[in-house]
Order: sequence, then C-alpha cells, then structure tokens
Amino acid sequence: MGNERLSEAWRDVARRARTAGEVEIEALLRGEPDRGQRLSLDAAGLHLDLTRHRLPADALDALLALAGAASVAARRDAMYAGEPVNFTEGRPALHVALRDPAPPGAGGRVPAGADDPRAGIAAEVADTLDRMARFCEAVRSGAWRGATGRPIGDIVHVGIGGSHLGPQLACEALAAYAHPRLRCHFLSNVDPQAFDRAVSGLEPATTLAIVASKSWHTLETARNAQALRRWFADGGIGHDALRHHLVGVTANVDAATAFGLAPESIFPFRDWVGGRYSLWSAIGLPAMLSIGPEHFRAMLAGAHAMDRHFAEAPLAANAPVLMALVSLWNSLALPGSTEVVVPYSDALRSLTAWLQQLQMESNGKRIGRDGAPVAWPTAPVVWGGPGTDVQHSFFQALHQGTGVHPVEFVVVVPSGDDPEGRGTALLANALAQREALLHGRSGSEGGPKDGDGMDWLAAHRACPGNRPSSLVLLDRLDPARFGALLALYEHKTAALGWLWDIDSFDQWGVELGKLLATDIEPLLDPARALPAGLAPDLRALIERIRAARRTAG
Amino acid sequence: MGNERLSEAWRDVARRARTAGEVEIEALLRGEPDRGQRLSLDAAGLHLDLTRHRLPADALDALLALAGAASVAARRDAMYAGEPVNFTEGRPALHVALRDPAPPGAGGRVPAGADDPRAGIAAEVADTLDRMARFCEAVRSGAWRGATGRPIGDIVHVGIGGSHLGPQLACEALAAYAHPRLRCHFLSNVDPQAFDRAVSGLEPATTLAIVASKSWHTLETARNAQALRRWFADGGIGHDALRHHLVGVTANVDAATAFGLAPESIFPFRDWVGGRYSLWSAIGLPAMLSIGPEHFRAMLAGAHAMDRHFAEAPLAANAPVLMALVSLWNSLALPGSTEVVVPYSDALRSLTAWLQQLQMESNGKRIGRDGAPVAWPTAPVVWGGPGTDVQHSFFQALHQGTGVHPVEFVVVVPSGDDPEGRGTALLANALAQREALLHGRSGSEGGPKDGDGMDWLAAHRACPGNRPSSLVLLDRLDPARFGALLALYEHKTAALGWLWDIDSFDQWGVELGKLLATDIEPLLDPARALPAGLAPDLRALIERIRAARRTAG
Repeated sequence: MGNERLSEAWRDVARRARTAGEVEIEALLRGEPDRGQRLSLDAAGLHLDLTRHRLPADALDALLALAGAASVAARRDAMYAGEPVNFTEGRPALHVALRDPAPPGAGGRVPAGADDPRAGIAAEVADTLDRMARFCEAVRSGAWRGATGRPIGDIVHVGIGGSHLGPQLACEALAAYAHPRLRCHFLSNVDPQAFDRAVSGLEPATTLAIVASKSWHTLETARNAQALRRWFADGGIGHDALRHHLVGVTANVDAATAFGLAPESIFPFRDWVGGRYSLWSAIGLPAMLSIGPEHFRAMLAGAHAMDRHFAEAPLAANAPVLMALVSLWNSLALPGSTEVVVPYSDALRSLTAWLQQLQMESNGKRIGRDGAPVAWPTAPVVWGGPGTDVQHSFFQALHQGTGVHPVEFVVVVPSGDDPEGRGTALLANALAQREALLHGRSGSEGGPKDGDGMDWLAAHRACPGNRPSSLVLLDRLDPARFGALLALYEHKTAALGWLWDIDSFDQWGVELGKLLATDIEPLLDPARALPAGLAPDLRALIERIRAARRTAG
Repeated sequence: MGNERLSEAWRDVARRARTAGEVEIEALLRGEPDRGQRLSLDAAGLHLDLTRHRLPADALDALLALAGAASVAARRDAMYAGEPVNFTEGRPALHVALRDPAPPGAGGRVPAGADDPRAGIAAEVADTLDRMARFCEAVRSGAWRGATGRPIGDIVHVGIGGSHLGPQLACEALAAYAHPRLRCHFLSNVDPQAFDRAVSGLEPATTLAIVASKSWHTLETARNAQALRRWFADGGIGHDALRHHLVGVTANVDAATAFGLAPESIFPFRDWVGGRYSLWSAIGLPAMLSIGPEHFRAMLAGAHAMDRHFAEAPLAANAPVLMALVSLWNSLALPGSTEVVVPYSDALRSLTAWLQQLQMESNGKRIGRDGAPVAWPTAPVVWGGPGTDVQHSFFQALHQGTGVHPVEFVVVVPSGDDPEGRGTALLANALAQREALLHGRSGSEGGPKDGDGMDWLAAHRACPGNRPSSLVLLDRLDPARFGALLALYEHKTAALGWLWDIDSFDQWGVELGKLLATDIEPLLDPARALPAGLAPDLRALIERIRAARRTAG
C-alpha cells in the first residue's frame, strides 16, 4: 500500500494476533493493574467495558500504533470537514452535520466558505428540522386532520433498509416517550402479506402514510406506495384527499412531485446522507412524530455529544476507536469469529438488525483504496438477539460450542414499578452470562460423578470459559443516551473502514441483484415464452414456479 | 474414537475439503451431468436444490461414506425406536412420535411391548391432541367464555425458548389460516416493557393466557405468569375466575397445580420432548387455537411425511441427510463460514430465530460421545432475516465481503390477488440474488471506465461470484408444507449431531448462567451489603448499577 509505517504496523498486529487465541482473560484482569483504566471508559452518558477480551496491553499498544499509521484521526477530521470520504462515489458523508447544532463558522464542525459547496448545510438542516417539527406538532396536537376531519391515529412508514431500520429502532427504543394517540407501523418488505399485516385493523380516514426512499424509486417502497394509494382510494380517500394522508421523505423531490405529492408534503434530504446514517435526517420523521420534536432534538444532541467525543478524545481514550480496535483484533486473533450483539432490553430488540446493516453494508468490502484486494478480513458477521430470550436459544453454542464469538452485552439499568422484580432479574441475567462466559466451570461442580472416577458426564457439563465479551451500559434509555449509542456504533464502523482502508460509505454490491431482478421478473409470467439462452437449472426452476402459479391460480 | 473406518472417512473428507475452497461452482454445474439429479430432490412437498455449493461429486461420495461410517441410518432408527439417543441424560428424543398417526404395533414408528416404558405413547399423544382440540373448538366457537361471559378475542402465550419460538413461527407462518376473531400475542422476555407491550390494548375479560414451561419454573415465564395474574386481578378477574382465562402447558403437572390451575386447565407433555422440538406437543396450543385442530393435524401430517422420507429414503437421496452433509462440508471447506437463512416470505420472518435455537442449541457442543473434545468444528452460526429486507442490509457483505457465507433461500411461490405485482417482484428478487451470488460480475459491465485504462472503479464495483447457496422451494405455504419444512430442519440437525458424534438433545451450557443469575440478583438490591469475595470489576459494575437505580428511583 505504499506506506511502510502502515505495513509495519499491520505486520506487528497480525504477528501478535497469531499467538493470542489462547490468551487467558482472567490472567490479564489480574495481572494488568491499569487494564480497567485503559479499556473501560465513559463517553456521552454511556459506560463501555472492553476489558474482557483476549487482548494484552502490548497488543493494545500495537493496535493504537496501527490507528496512528492508518491516519484514523486525519480521516475522521476529513469526514467532519465534508471531504469526499466516500471516495468511490466522490461524496462526503455528513451525517454528523445533521446533529450539529452550531452554525458553520460559529463552532460547528462543518466549515463553510463562499465557494464551499457545503455552505448553507447547517441552515438547510435547521430548516428541515423546523419544517418536520411544525408538521409533527400539528399531527400530534390533532390540528392536522384526515380528509374526513378526524385526527391521525396510525402512522404507516413505508421504507426499506436505511429508510426502515433506524426509524423503527428509534420508535421502539423510545416507546416510553411515545404520543399516546399515535401508533407507528413499519412496512418494508414487498411481500403482499407484509402489506396486509401493516394495515390490518387500520382505518384510512385516521391513517397517515410516510413514503421514505432516498431515490424514490426503490422497488419495494414504490410498489408499496402504489398499493397504499389503492388502499386509501378503496377506503374513500381519493387522489385529491391524499395530501391529508400521505407525505414523502426523499432526496429526489422531482420524482415525489411526479408521484403526486405537493411541495409541502415532501421532506427532503441530501445525497451526502447515506441510507444507513439517515435516521438523523427527515427519514427520522416517524420517530419525531412519535416522541415529539423536543425528544427528537435530545436524541440529536446525544449523538452530537458522541460526535464531539469521537472528534476530540485522544485515540487511546476514544470509545468508538477502542471498539473498532477490539473488533479488528478479534477478527485476527479469533479467525472465523463473529460479533454477537445482545441487548438486554426489549426496547432495543431491533438494535441487532440496525447494526447488521450499519456494519456489514459499510464494511462488507474487499477492495482497498488503491483498487487492490485488501490482505485482511473485513466486516465480521454481526448477529444476535434480545436477552434473556437468546439465553434459551443460541447461548448454548456460545458457552460450549467449538467456535469462539465475542458477545456484546448492551444493558439498560431498569427502572419503574416492578412488583415481580422482572427488571432486576433481567439485569442479573446479563451480568451472570458475562461471568459464565469468562469463568466457565468444570463440569464436576455440583454434578454427579462417574462411579469409576472417569467423570465422563463432567466433560459434557463443563464450560471452558475465557470467552470474550464487551459491555455497553446505559443508566437509562432516554433520547440522549439512545442517540449517543447509535453514534458510537456509527463511528466504530467508520474507524474500522479507515483501519481496513476500504470505503465504508458506498454499497456497490447491492446493485447487481437489483439489475438481475428486473431481468427475471417478466420471466415469471406464465404467458411469456422463455428466452433460449437461459441456464438449464434456472430455466427448470422458473418452469416449476410457473407451473405452481398456474395450479394456485 | 476407536472406529478405524470412521476415522478414515473423516480424514478423507477433511483432506478433500482443504483444497475445495476454490472449486468453481459454475464448472461443476457445467461439468457434472448428473449433478442436478444427485443434489436436487423433492420430499414431502418441498423442493430442495443443493447444486450450488463448492462440492464436487467425488467429495459428495466421500461425505456419503462418512455418513455410512458414522452409522447415521442406525442412529436415526434408534431415535425412532425410542432408544436413549440423548445419551448424556439417558433419555429418548421422541418428537417424531408426536406426529405419528399410526398406533404402536400397527405400523407406527414407535414400538411398544408390555415392558416397554414407551408403551402407550401413541395413545397418550392422541389423548392430549383430542383434549387440545376440544378446548380449541370451544374457544374458537365462542362456547368458551371469559368470567364475565364474553368470548375470547386475544391469546397471550407466555413461554421462552422452545416454548416460544415454534408456536410464534407457526402462528405467523399460517396466519392465512387464522381464526378471524383470535389474535395471538407472545410474551417471552422478562423485561417489564415486553409485558406491557404484550398486553397493551387488551381487555382481561376477553383475554386467554397460556403459560408454557416444561419445568414450570423457568424464571422468565414464572415471573411473567405472576405479573399476568396480577394484571387479571387488577382487571377484575380474581383467583376464582382465573380458570376461565389461564391455562398451563407443562411437563410438571404438580407445579402447575400448586400455581392454582385445575387439572382440566393443564395440558401435559413428557420429558422426552425437547424444548426445541416441542411445537408438535401441547406447546403448540396457540397455533391450534389460531389455525384450528384440522389444520394443526395437517401440520403434523406434513411433518410426519418428512419423518417417513427421512426414515425410508436412501442416504444419497435423503433430503435432511444431504442438507447435513452440505453443511458439514461447508464448515470444513469454508473455514469461518456461517449459515445465512433468508426466507423470501413475510410469513416466515421468524424462521431464522427458530433455526438458531434448533441448530445452535442442538449442536453447539464440543464434547463427543466418548467424553473427549471433538476434532472438528460443530454448529456454525446461523443467522439471517427476511428477503427482500436483508438485500438492503447485509447482502452487501455477502456479495463483496472477504468472508464466504452460504445462503439458504427459502422461497414460497406467491399466490393471490396482487395488482402491483409485489409477489412476483419478491420471487424475482430471490432468484436474482441466487444468480448474483453465483455468477458475480466484472465491475466494468455497464460502468464507467477510468481514463487511463486502470479501471480502479471497476475493482470496487466487481462481485467475485462463486458464492454458494441452497434453495428450499415451497409451491405454497400450507400447514402440511410448513410442518414438512420444520421437520426437514429438525432431521438435518439430528443428522449433523450424529456425524459430529455429539449429543444434539442435551443443553448443559445453559445451566451455568441460570445458577449465576440466582446468585447475582440479590446483589442488585441497593439495601444489601456486597460480599467481600466479589471480583473488583464485578463489584465496581454492581456499585455503578446500584447508584443509577438510586438516582432513577
């Protein structure tokens, strides 16, 4: 890669990682007096504990040297400055500007000069937020009425990928702040059953639909928007009345206008907002409708607090950077490992799905900045599910399987009235699983012994322990801490992209499937002749499907 | 393992797998004329295509030799015969008996002699099904009334793990068959917010709760049952009226009786039904309530059809066995690979969570039958999500990431009225993604060229292809095909356990965390002194949590 210092730093990390698989975490905890100080920290209202990894202090030094050699700080600054960090598309990635309350030139992170194309960003962001707030206040107060004069009770948000996962997560996570009259429903999948489920029990006269698509032409969202328009029409809300019931969020205002939306029904955002970073833009409209403009701004402020921490804290005490370095380390020291995310919070049950997109769409790449394949593994598989549910599912494999997969516990301190002590039990289970992963047990503790002393059963009962985990602790799940949590992960992901020297902000891999789907869709019509050049197995499959459809029809 | 033939078969497979990573799937499809015949087949109404793996014909022969050496057929027969295939607990695994309509000795798969402890199993299964059916008919017809005389409108099923994932999946998958008056809600997590969400908007007077726990003492379910009892009492349904609103499903009838349930309110099942195989037992009650006894029996019949296929088809043409062999092959040929399951069906959106438990709890083990660690990787990570949603999320990494992860497409041929062609689009996307994974593309197709010919952008746009996938195709999603689908995965999982020589039917790894949680829970009470022996980092964390709770309280 033409940078000797960087190559050397990579070699040093890789060499250490090769022998690190068998590092004993308990020995590190006992033997490194400043481990807690280096690997646990507080940032923007979150507490982070990264001490329980197979990462010795000298390897952490090597990782920090790698972060230096990879110019992580300079690349971070370039992102904040609006430089084209999305280098394959020549675009900035300015989601941080969406939550920066300070205007350009007055302490905000986004500079603006007369000839700077980013001039006016802050004003535009503030203007969109104000428009969103006025709209939300009207809907929430009941001043905004449906075509028949009734207030809105249900919101159907239509969007997929980045236009879906963030808004749904925010609405669920902050449900404690939700407006009591408004229920949010999310429609993403193009499957007609998903549509039927989303509108089940809803009345068109009291339903507000939000159609959210950056390009406006996303296949799923476009078809679902058509189906919704039909559903409204069938319910007596015709074309002229639709403006009371349908608004759009898009970067393609012209297409939304062509669909039939009036200018005041379109909430725009810009092409420098990536889909997976778009919750902070007008895409967050359902969240603002649900929790209100004030709490939405608190969420932005929480994210901004994490933005400042990421921008200002030294790399060695920088929460997103340390998370990125631990992730990179595990990908090398534990080959084949994945990242298991387990929120111990029903409200955060969709965090895993949001993180899957964020991390795997951002960093599921194999080509470096120089156009050549990178020499290291990039984004690991991210998966998981809510605790305690998953303790009764896949945790068996985490404790006793042959693979080692670091577990990230996202824990919210419970509050509120709770006669059955359920919140305390939830918390105790999170802590207990961390202990069990770390310490394991010999199978003979408390168990029966084999008569001849061989203790065959103990071998089956034993848990080897020494399994790594991280902890993210939230004293409570309020809008600010929620915003900070998501920004923490966003910056972790960006830092990994810079360490791996890939473009975290493009997504070329999703394009091919879309093109092929357009080619294949007409072939599924039984009335059409199949082209001669079709591969035999694809032809056989399509013929089988066409036969099944004829039978069903 | 003391079996030379088995060791030799393993060595042969492992040797082939070491060089198989770069096998070109397209070359196999072109070059092996009988590949389609060997690796695609129909069973119990399902179509399975396993041709698109990096598995040459001679390696398939080696895998079949391994299946022979590992006595997969004999172990399968032992399972059907009720032998203690759960060898660490000395218990049979007789979920197949739950869906076997033939009585013992009359062609059923479960033998019964006078001194056979399994005598009477079929009669008991039939009796429980009949009791369930009578209860369900009463609730569905409205003959069963709540304490105030109103029919039941909402069902809250309380259970976690195996008592949750199967019933929820069945209710969602067969929603097209649901009773129009009955809505099913599932409460698994101990988080009080999950409880609030489950009962939100429900009226105690028209709600029926099902408390499902094999042991009756599962912490989450026990606390949620207490909370539900309180919710009913607060809604005017006191202790004496509760029998109209709460029934239990358990293998511990005594404990359910002690909780206050009358014998006629308890639906029992036996300890030879593993939690993750319990949908077919009384645990399936919410599904039977929703779809009715007739469709529930059709689901059992579909599973039974797959049971017969698994029992009777030669290993080389046996769908679960072939799936298991392909999975085993990928775990060796693609080190670090995971299994991605993508149902292109909104109704199957919970299939992935059910499969995670089934496969990872069953086979997330490291100790063989002889008590020594096995020499191969066992259960891979299973994850995924619904198509087309995940195309807009993690599919980027599947197409262009550094890791290779086989994708299992579960596709249902859409039917029904669909003016916007959404079902066709869904199907076309599934087929397109399979093509894209297999064929990839050079980045220069249709893209801009770099002026000096280096085509740097093309490198970023290129998809390498040659990424393996499986296809499970259902001509429609009816109860029988749904039952067959789940049984297919159950038997795949069992076959893998026999190949890996582990106990697929125990789960010792979940025990330790439960014990530790009981120890930790009292420490979270701020009024209690912390014991001296606590590890410093755990002590600091608990003190932090206690402080946060004091602030919140």
